[in-house]
This record gives sequence, C-alpha cells and structure tokens, in this order.
Amino acid sequence: MANAEIIAVGSELLTPQRIDTNSLTLTEALNNLGVEVVGKQVVGDDRIRLTEAIRESLKRAEIVILSGGLGPTEDDITRDAAAQALGRRLVFSPEQEAILAAYFQRLNRTMAENNRRQAHLIEGAEALANPNGTAPGQFFRTGAGALILLPGPPRELKPMMENEVVPRLRKMLPRQVIRVRTFRITGIGESDLDRMIAPIYTRYENPATTILFASGDLFVHLRARCDSEQEAEALLKEVGDPIAEKLGDLVYTQNPAESLEGVIGRLLQDQKATIATAESCTGGLIAARLTNLPGSSKRYIGGYITYSEKQKQEVLGVPAELLAQYSAVSRQVAVAMAEGARKQSGATYALSTTGYAGPEGGTEQDPVGTVYVGIVGPHGTTIERIKHGGDRERVRTYSTQSALNILRKTLINHR
Amino acid sequence: MANAEIIAVGSELLTPQRIDTNSLTLTEALNNLGVEVVGKQVVGDDRIRLTEAIRESLKRAEIVILSGGLGPTEDDITRDAAAQALGRRLVFSPEQEAILAAYFQRLNRTMAENNRRQAHLIEGAEALANPNGTAPGQFFRTGAGALILLPGPPRELKPMMENEVVPRLRKMLPRQVIRVRTFRITGIGESDLDRMIAPIYTRYENPATTILFASGDLFVHLRARCDSEQEAEALLKEVGDPIAEKLGDLVYTQNPAESLEGVIGRLLQDQKATIATAESCTGGLIAARLTNLPGSSKRYIGGYITYSEKQKQEVLGVPAELLAQYSAVSRQVAVAMAEGARKQSGATYALSTTGYAGPEGGTEQDPVGTVYVGIVGPHGTTIERIKHGGDRERVRTYSTQSALNILRKTLINHR
Repeated sequence: MANAEIIAVGSELLTPQRIDTNSLTLTEALNNLGVEVVGKQVVGDDRIRLTEAIRESLKRAEIVILSGGLGPTEDDITRDAAAQALGRRLVFSPEQEAILAAYFQRLNRTMAENNRRQAHLIEGAEALANPNGTAPGQFFRTGAGALILLPGPPRELKPMMENEVVPRLRKMLPRQVIRVRTFRITGIGESDLDRMIAPIYTRYENPATTILFASGDLFVHLRARCDSEQEAEALLKEVGDPIAEKLGDLVYTQNPAESLEGVIGRLLQDQKATIATAESCTGGLIAARLTNLPGSSKRYIGGYITYSEKQKQEVLGVPAELLAQYSAVSRQVAVAMAEGARKQSGATYALSTTGYAGPEGGTEQDPVGTVYVGIVGPHGTTIERIKHGGDRERVRTYSTQSALNILRKTLINHR
Repeated sequence: MANAEIIAVGSELLTPQRIDTNSLTLTEALNNLGVEVVGKQVVGDDRIRLTEAIRESLKRAEIVILSGGLGPTEDDITRDAAAQALGRRLVFSPEQEAILAAYFQRLNRTMAENNRRQAHLIEGAEALANPNGTAPGQFFRTGAGALILLPGPPRELKPMMENEVVPRLRKMLPRQVIRVRTFRITGIGESDLDRMIAPIYTRYENPATTILFASGDLFVHLRARCDSEQEAEALLKEVGDPIAEKLGDLVYTQNPAESLEGVIGRLLQDQKATIATAESCTGGLIAARLTNLPGSSKRYIGGYITYSEKQKQEVLGVPAELLAQYSAVSRQVAVAMAEGARKQSGATYALSTTGYAGPEGGTEQDPVGTVYVGIVGPHGTTIERIKHGGDRERVRTYSTQSALNILRKTLINHR
C-alpha cells in the first residue's frame, strides 16, 4: 500500500484561531484510493523551512500533497519551494496565462501583473484545472509517486482533488475497491458503545472501524478495502450484521446522510402524521431540528416555547393547580403541555419538554440537567425523565437529542 | 523571540474524521508568552517516525511540545521516542508510581500492571502533575529551551499547559507583556470588513491583527506584545480606536466573551424589558439563541413557531385577508405576526420572521433566501427585508444572526 504525507502551507494556520481542515478532505480521498496518510504538518510562509519539509516528506512517502501558498503574492512560496525541493526550474506557461486571462475576463476584472506568477509550472509538472480560482494545481510525477500542489481555499481544493488528482492517482495505484457501511446511533455514550461492539470489530483489520461522536450523535464506519466489490460487500456483511444485531434500536439509520430528524420526518410521512412542539428548557432547539429539513412544513405544524408558568397556562392550557401541585418541571406538566400543544395545533403528535437547563434551579429529586419529555399521540401518552450532565449548553443539546430519540422510538412502536 | 514546534501523536489523528485541536490551545499559550509557533505536525503511532520527527524539530525550534501517546499501552510510544531522540534513558520513578497508585485508589479501581509504564520519566526530566488522568507530563530542559510531553485528552492537557508548563517557560523566557483587544462584529462580510480596516491595521506589525469568521459572526483580535503594560495598552488604543470609529455600530461588543444574544439580554435588562418571538422560516433558531444564556427566563417570555398559515391566524391572530392579499412572506404579515406575539405574550418587544429558507418556494420579487423581520415594541414598529444566499441551513443560520442584529439596533435606538 502506498503512503502519503500532507503539508498545509500558511502562517495563518499557525495561529491559535485557524486550523487546517483541508487535510481531512485529502485524507478521505486518499484512504478511498487505498493510500494511508502517515504524517501531516503545517509550515508557515517560510521558503527555507518549506523546501526542507517537502524534501523530507518525499523521502518518507510516495505521495506528497501540499495545500495553500499558490496565490499571486510574494508570500505565496509553495511553487518556488516545491521546485527547489525537486531540483527543477519553474517554467512560465503561456497556456496557463491565457487561462488566467480568460478567468479574469469572465469576472470583468483586470488581471494584475503579479497574477502572472501563477502561470509558472514546475518543469515537467502537469497543470490541474481550477475552475473556482486563479491558482492552477500541479501534478509532478516522481519515480515512486507524485508531488501534488493544490490551492488552499476548500472550495477550490475539494473539486480539484476529486476531479483532477484522484483520477491521476487511481491510474498509478493498484486497483482496489472500497466499500463503506455506516451506522448512526444515539442514546448511548461513546465508551459504552465501544464496549458493546469492540469484541466484534477488533477481530478484523479489514474492514477498518472508526467511531465518531458529536453531541450525543454517534457514527460507526466500517471501511472494507478489497480486490472486488463482492468481497468487500461480503466482509461488510460479516462484520456489520452482528454489530447491527447487537445494537438493535440504538441504530436509528444505516444511511450515512440521514439525520435523526430525517428519520423522524420519514416515520411521520409514512403515517401521514404531523407534529407540534411545546418546549420549555430546550427553548426552540427541538423545533429548529425538526424544521431543518427541506419540506418539513408538510409535517411540522407549529411550536410553542413557553418559558414562564403564565405562558404554559395561557398558551397551552396547563391547569394552574397542576403547576402548583407538581411544579413546572414534572411528569404531569410535561403531559399537559403536550396535550395542550396537540389540541391547539391539531397535529397528530405533540412533543413537550420541561426541565432545568441550569446553571440555576433544580430540586433535590430533580437536579439541574433533569428534563421531562412528553409525547401525546393517537395511541396514547409517552412520558420519560432524562438527565444529562454538564453546562447549560450541553444539557440543552443533549436533551434535544434524547427527546428526538424518544419521539423516534414512539413513532416506531406505533407504526 | 523563541520559536516552538508542536507534534501531535496518534494514528487516529491521521484519519479523515479526527483533527488535532490541542495545538490551538498550545499555540495560544505560547503566543501569550511571546513564543511563535513555526511548525506543527501529526505523527502516527510509529516509533521510528516519531523519534526522527522529534530530532528534527529540536534542530529547528527551541521549544518542542508533544501531545498524546502517553497512555499505558504498547501503542503509546511518546516516552520512548522522546528519550531516544534526546539520547537519554527512561528511568522508573517510584514517586510517580505512588502518585498513580493513589489516583487509582481515589477512583476505587485497581491499577493495571501496564500502568507502571506511565511511571517512567526521561532521565533528567521533571514530572508535570496531571490531576485529571494517569499520564504525568514531562518537562526536559535542553541547552536552548525545552522538550515537553503532555497527554492527549484536552481536559488533561489544557490545565497542565496552564499550570505546569507556562510558569516554567515564563521563568526561562525574556519577560514580555501581551494585551489583547477584541471587536465582535456582525452585519458585514469578511472581505468587506477587511477592506474597511486593512488600511489601518496593516501599518502595524505590532499589534498583530487576526480576523475570524463564523456564520455571520466576526472577530477582530489585536494582540500587542510589549515590554510594559502601559506600552501595550497605548498601542491597542492607537490602532483600536480608529478601527472602532471606522466600524461604528457594526461592532456589537468589545467584550470577547459576550455573544450577540448576550448583548441583547443586557440591553433588555437595562430597559427592564422582555421579549417574545414569532418564527416561521427560522423555525425556533432565534428562540434557541435568546434562551442560550443562563437567566434568560427573566427576559424571554415565550415563542411561537407558526409554520402554516392556519397557525399564523389561530395562534398569532394574523388576519386571513392579509395572508391572502400579501402572502405569508411579506412585510405586512411579519408585522402582524410580531403584533400578535406581543399581544399574546404581554412582552415589551416581539420579534418575527417569515421567509423562504428553501430549497423550494420563493417568488420573483422574493426569491429563496428572502426573510422579512418584524419588531414591535413600545416605540413602534421596525420592519426589514433581508436576503441571504446558500442552502437552507445557511439561510436559516444567517437570517437568525441578521434578525438578532436588527433587534440589537432597535434596542439601542430606543434606549
């Protein structure tokens, strides 16, 4: 298997505010070609350091990709440094100049003199077309592999990697098929998930398994790399099916592009059902998730954010006695809020939340982080108490995720 | 000025899913000491590569900080590689073993045999206390500077950098004072902002200026590095005051920790005023922002998410004729929604949005991305039409930011 190194160029990437994310795009594309990334680095706008870094990377890896530093100014040192590291000259390309001139003409702008720098190619390199910017990329074949220059802006680099670099590398590399199977999971922590499925996936090096975690949303990716599609699919079945069985309804979808709110939208659509929300502590976050998707207005009727007791009474008709007897954060009030929202809106289902997001509030029985989730629908009432730790933002985000997951399970049960 | 390089260790940081963010924490702390980061890299769990990388970094920079690879397993190679690069032995420290044993006892867990690895120090290195984990850090003084080993988990690395590393480095380095001035800005694009203020800040190397952009929210940081506090403050005034004047009310705060919703909360509190929201296309995002902050329940009364025309009529009392005559996405309906929300809730102010988030909908006059924002308060009505490009998510996020900014300006005008 071939190895690659990635070098991001730019002093701004060495500040506390900026991070190189292009390397993630490049790594994914390289992995899909069966190429492993064995190192990556950031070098500032320093010609000597960059030349040295390229030279060293070319010793360690067959493929070296640089991003950034291809602009028209003195600071843009990547062309020079790469040529020097390879011991080649930079050659002016009239063809590239014509492409640049045409680009500026399309934008009705005059080409500045210093843009001519961008028409210089490393002797022997192929130019890579950049439809979204001025800097062409460069692809220089070395004995063992290639040195590749790409511009820094992601909207230029991304399509160039896909359309220009990947096809060239694919021709150079031994043919391999990559197939991926994804599980999207919620309702469990990362370490508990790993404990459940590690006994299955650790027995295999291929497919490679990665677990990803973001605000209560988990991804498990299995990536099989084989000589044929059949082989790859069989491998994903062999490892993925036991994982699917072990995780059961913790998996909300195996479609990597389908979000939790997307699954809920699909379940509602299947039932020709609609939904309304009545939120207290989540303050609109659930509504925002449910209205995230195009076309959600067909299923989402409306929402009420009732922060005060007065609003809970006036807007949702929660009885004052209930609030007095059980307090606003209680099972009883959560149910009454959902009932009120359902009645008000005429939706098939209504979902409510009431709880303590913190940092103030909470009781001994229901400390900060406690949220009651109520769901009322044609088949009856679901009420759950959830409890998340952390600060206000974490409690709100995780409670939103939990509430949506309770809704998903309710919709599945009543399917 | 001293230079530093940062090496993050771990094969997981070479996958398409993970990125090294520790280097941002480390860079900020180093910059504040007057140390410039001249390169950073990621090396996988490969002892030979890592040893070589450390050796090379020590040639280029006085200070080299490694993060990760200090765990108890065979894969954790940082200790070994660092010792080898320095030509030193690893020495078992009974004192560190005792600290580890005590740590496990506090957690009521038994210490595994392989944790003893973590009690090995590079000969001549100081141990750095890690109250949040098992791996001690290490601080090795070289002739020119230091090689520093820190664990990978941010919640361990961060406090160790602050409490253990920074004080040691400060003693080694020439004394410098760093002062920062921050502007938080909204209502303008990054390149327009830069065009406005570049003539001011580019005349100075000190303070260093960085511009940061995230979803319509902009930060300008000026960082002055001087021998005395007075000198630094004077410099920030010299550069910052003309920037403040040039930007006017585009700057919503100069407090780096205060968000746009925080400013709004403060303005409402000053007026002893409350607010309610009536959202259509933003679907709860504005409510979620306004309820983000602790104590927001004192100012935020409640919200209505009225997606359908029926809801706009029933919940907010928008007249059917208005909807028929002007359509739901119109100035008239935005105002009626805000009026309805204000009346319903009894809040001092009410804010409404109605628009086309896309991808479907829109008209010739009001294409996808158009949103009407209405604000009704004791001093009258504000109505603005905004238009953002991009996909549904971008339109919703940017419209939310714009609407909050319109609210901020309204509150300032009526102060």
